Amino acid sequence: MSKTEVTLGIDIGGTNTAMAIVDNDGNILAKESIPTRAMDPAADLFKRLFEKFNHLYEPLKEKYYDLVGIGIGAPNANYYKGTIENPPNLNWGMVDVIGLVKEYYNLPIVVTNDANAAALGEMQFGVAKGMKNFVQITLGTGLGSGIIVNGELMYGADGFAGEMGHMTIVRDGRKCACGKRGCLETYVSATGIKRTAYEMLCDMTDKSGMREIPYNNLNAKKIYDAAISGDKVAQAAFKFTGRLLGQAMADVVALLSPEAFIVFGGLAKSGDLLLEPTSKHLENNLLRVFKGKIKILESGLPEGDAAVLGSAALIWNEIKQKN
Amino acid sequence: MSKTEVTLGIDIGGTNTAMAIVDNDGNILAKESIPTRAMDPAADLFKRLFEKFNHLYEPLKEKYYDLVGIGIGAPNANYYKGTIENPPNLNWGMVDVIGLVKEYYNLPIVVTNDANAAALGEMQFGVAKGMKNFVQITLGTGLGSGIIVNGELMYGADGFAGEMGHMTIVRDGRKCACGKRGCLETYVSATGIKRTAYEMLCDMTDKSGMREIPYNNLNAKKIYDAAISGDKVAQAAFKFTGRLLGQAMADVVALLSPEAFIVFGGLAKSGDLLLEPTSKHLENNLLRVFKGKIKILESGLPEGDAAVLGSAALIWNEIKQKN
Repeated sequence: MSKTEVTLGIDIGGTNTAMAIVDNDGNILAKESIPTRAMDPAADLFKRLFEKFNHLYEPLKEKYYDLVGIGIGAPNANYYKGTIENPPNLNWGMVDVIGLVKEYYNLPIVVTNDANAAALGEMQFGVAKGMKNFVQITLGTGLGSGIIVNGELMYGADGFAGEMGHMTIVRDGRKCACGKRGCLETYVSATGIKRTAYEMLCDMTDKSGMREIPYNNLNAKKIYDAAISGDKVAQAAFKFTGRLLGQAMADVVALLSPEAFIVFGGLAKSGDLLLEPTSKHLENNLLRVFKGKIKILESGLPEGDAAVLGSAALIWNEIKQKN
Repeated sequence: MSKTEVTLGIDIGGTNTAMAIVDNDGNILAKESIPTRAMDPAADLFKRLFEKFNHLYEPLKEKYYDLVGIGIGAPNANYYKGTIENPPNLNWGMVDVIGLVKEYYNLPIVVTNDANAAALGEMQFGVAKGMKNFVQITLGTGLGSGIIVNGELMYGADGFAGEMGHMTIVRDGRKCACGKRGCLETYVSATGIKRTAYEMLCDMTDKSGMREIPYNNLNAKKIYDAAISGDKVAQAAFKFTGRLLGQAMADVVALLSPEAFIVFGGLAKSGDLLLEPTSKHLENNLLRVFKGKIKILESGLPEGDAAVLGSAALIWNEIKQKN
């Protein structure tokens, strides 16, 4: 009986670290999540992670499944060096991830940032199957992006390409966590739309239930609910957010000529409320040669599994390239 | 005696069409230029072009040189289709270039736009030798750019990637020939700096020799000469132009993580007058991870030959990939 190859996809987050054993078609055979414990050393996390993994893998091994590689998505991961460098929210400093993991399994191991992994996940298992040029955008607390060019993830000279969230969309605009001002993610993200909603509350005179909610309690979901129930201020916040996303996309198209943008994450689930103005302002700002050609698609991956599927896609992609 | 392989590089411009016979090291063995005659059909141009070429090639053939391919740089060229589509300044409509050229030589033939060809020229024969990720910027009447990712020219889904000149740098800014407003090339190009110089004449109260020159007579060279001789308005125009170029470069870095920008063309020869403010504002707008790492280099190719060398590099690149 021939063995079925599987990979381990790991997604390291500030709070939890998820893992899944994934076959070549994107089927998840087993999955688990453990607390990351941000203040502990990275080595502790991998010790706990592989104890848990061995429990998951043992019964699969008996059924002739064979682990062939490990893919890891993490903030501030450097693909070229195999390191994670001063990740925000983790007390790690500089970590040689591949070295740490090799202590447990001496297999092909690849690490990249979570947004890049998500793009590969869409290409192998999601709505971007068959596409060779597209941009994946994850709308969470910030705006992450992964860019596929000629069927390959674009890492750039440094391994840090794909930071669409830090393009300047408003000169001298809002303060960003990165230290700059006016970055796209200060407008187009869950926290961005909240900042916009509060600006709109100041600017507009319309009644809004959001005027009863303290800043720290408002979130993208509440703005969405307000907009759906007719709140004009919330609707204006979505229109503004979509406009800036569309304008930024048009600049990206001028440079990259992608076939599509794939949007993912909480805010992306707002559907037409966000994507209708996005699409309109993308079209309005495109060069003639691109008009009517650029697709905006919602992610094809289940939200809970997308990160680990992306990490698994990362290592599947590497293994395929070597064969 | 073994034969030495050469290629033919052709650069089609609105006024003149240049050709050169180029070896694998970028040496030009023969070159010639003929009028394009914009109102005549494309077939006429290629007929005249190959008559001239045969005269150049005949003596080389006798010395055991062997033509192995033809590269063509032209405005609005589509790499994927092998066509030139409604080029500005040429009365051609849609032209099947590869079909036309095959009537003369049944060899590998590739066509792309002139900015893309220039990027390949820098990679094979110029200052970008050995680089795998960089952006070539040509500052002429407009701003052309060619982008190399992972050692390959980025064509994108449509074959039209690399239009950095049409990123929006000023929202609702100057009217562009493309129909949009605020495109980078309306500020950063020979015509862009002229528009800026006139705005500065209106805004500033300083004396300036440029106040004696009618709009249609002012050009980038005159603004350069004025700046060098101490004209404050001209100096301000260069500072402003450099600032916008630096800001746009920072956005490109966030997306692409290139090793360098290579600048070429008349305005690029202004040296520090342009590149000092460019570099300063690039650095100021970079994410921390990129600071101090991005090079701005002046082109390594002789200006008169850069276009035909780029076209030759285009076909050399194709031939190497196939072997």
